[in-house]
Amino acid sequence: MAQNIYDEAEFFGRYSQLRRSIHGLDGAPEWPAIRALLPDLGGKRVVDLGCGFGWFARWARQHGAAHVLGLDLSENMIGRARTDTHDAGIEYAIADLEQLELPKSSFDFAYSSLALHYIAGFETLVKTVHHSLRSDGAFIFTIEHPIYMAPTDPTWMLDGHGRKRWPIDGYSVEGPRSTDWLTRGVIKQHRTLGTTLNTLIAAGFAIRQVQEWAPTAAQIAVNPDLAEEVERPMILIVSAERG
Amino acid sequence: MAQNIYDEAEFFGRYSQLRRSIHGLDGAPEWPAIRALLPDLGGKRVVDLGCGFGWFARWARQHGAAHVLGLDLSENMIGRARTDTHDAGIEYAIADLEQLELPKSSFDFAYSSLALHYIAGFETLVKTVHHSLRSDGAFIFTIEHPIYMAPTDPTWMLDGHGRKRWPIDGYSVEGPRSTDWLTRGVIKQHRTLGTTLNTLIAAGFAIRQVQEWAPTAAQIAVNPDLAEEVERPMILIVSAERG
Repeated sequence: MAQNIYDEAEFFGRYSQLRRSIHGLDGAPEWPAIRALLPDLGGKRVVDLGCGFGWFARWARQHGAAHVLGLDLSENMIGRARTDTHDAGIEYAIADLEQLELPKSSFDFAYSSLALHYIAGFETLVKTVHHSLRSDGAFIFTIEHPIYMAPTDPTWMLDGHGRKRWPIDGYSVEGPRSTDWLTRGVIKQHRTLGTTLNTLIAAGFAIRQVQEWAPTAAQIAVNPDLAEEVERPMILIVSAERG
Repeated sequence: MAQNIYDEAEFFGRYSQLRRSIHGLDGAPEWPAIRALLPDLGGKRVVDLGCGFGWFARWARQHGAAHVLGLDLSENMIGRARTDTHDAGIEYAIADLEQLELPKSSFDFAYSSLALHYIAGFETLVKTVHHSLRSDGAFIFTIEHPIYMAPTDPTWMLDGHGRKRWPIDGYSVEGPRSTDWLTRGVIKQHRTLGTTLNTLIAAGFAIRQVQEWAPTAAQIAVNPDLAEEVERPMILIVSAERG
């Protein structure tokens, strides 16, 4: 079972204060880039892997999705999602993505935002998603970028000119990384970008788009903290189609 | 026209002393990984973009290719290739890949080793290659990895624990990078991995494999200098198929 930090009170309290937790999809700077890749959801059956507070599930319903299944390991998350985004067309369930089973050919679209980098059994999960999609179904997900995840010490260094540099090491050494983010010892699973894509291809997906997300100049003007995302990508967006 | 460093006497002299220049394909540590991806070349028509000394052209002929067209910007390279790997089934020509034209549906396999990171007009070249391939034709190439190319100062730093770190900056800023490699001011064209793949997909290629090459333990045992390639990838290998 994946580590369940979202059900630790201290972590969850801090997580709930993040911009993206308060402002929903519009609080996530990568959302416009994701949205531009989304298929028309009208009449579609959608599964959201790691649905969190249910922001995307609600958005999907508002944009015509027939049904959304939102899955999350965290009782805290699912509890909040059920309260805040109650909708007859949304079903929420607690689920460990490491052990996920889904019915065959039952969804048109699978979505996941910043959840799959917690999953050790990525290959198994990708096969499960492929099996659960109808033909021509799509799978769009974001994860932390492997450049962001790889380092033993993922913090900026300053070079001799005082310029911020993101110090990579261990890029080809796949496996767990323990970092401190809102709490100590958060475990993420580093995979190279190649492994992520090759796993999708081997499962039968066609890669449609690979975006190493970077903020626009307009976004940086509003939020100067985003400028560092231009120096090294933090988020990877992948769009794939069931073959 | 691309910068033609290979026809500068000093650069060419130094380049000719590299392990991969003296020992051919077996002098390139990434060759076993490339070879494992190659299709059966028996009876195939092959184009090699940036053929250098003609090592691959000769290998392709030895492995059954019907005809190989080897293209390179450098007169030095083409001269050496014609002398060292003369073969009735190999045709060498000087060509600027920035201005390349190829006949439609005339090749079964396109290959390129460590040349396309010199090319500014990657999108145009990819369309040309697609157009020149027969259906189900394949395109396999290596380039310097964008993690390797991105930094303003592509040299290792030491962190507070004396550990080597590869200091990324400017990853999302695409365009020329001037570095010193065998001579001063070698111009390479940095593109994100996403852009490289999306350009192929937009041209009609299906991505088959993305390898961020790393040496095996056995290779490191023989050549300990290769260990740093595990810390950050230097070479990207892409295998694509014409849709």
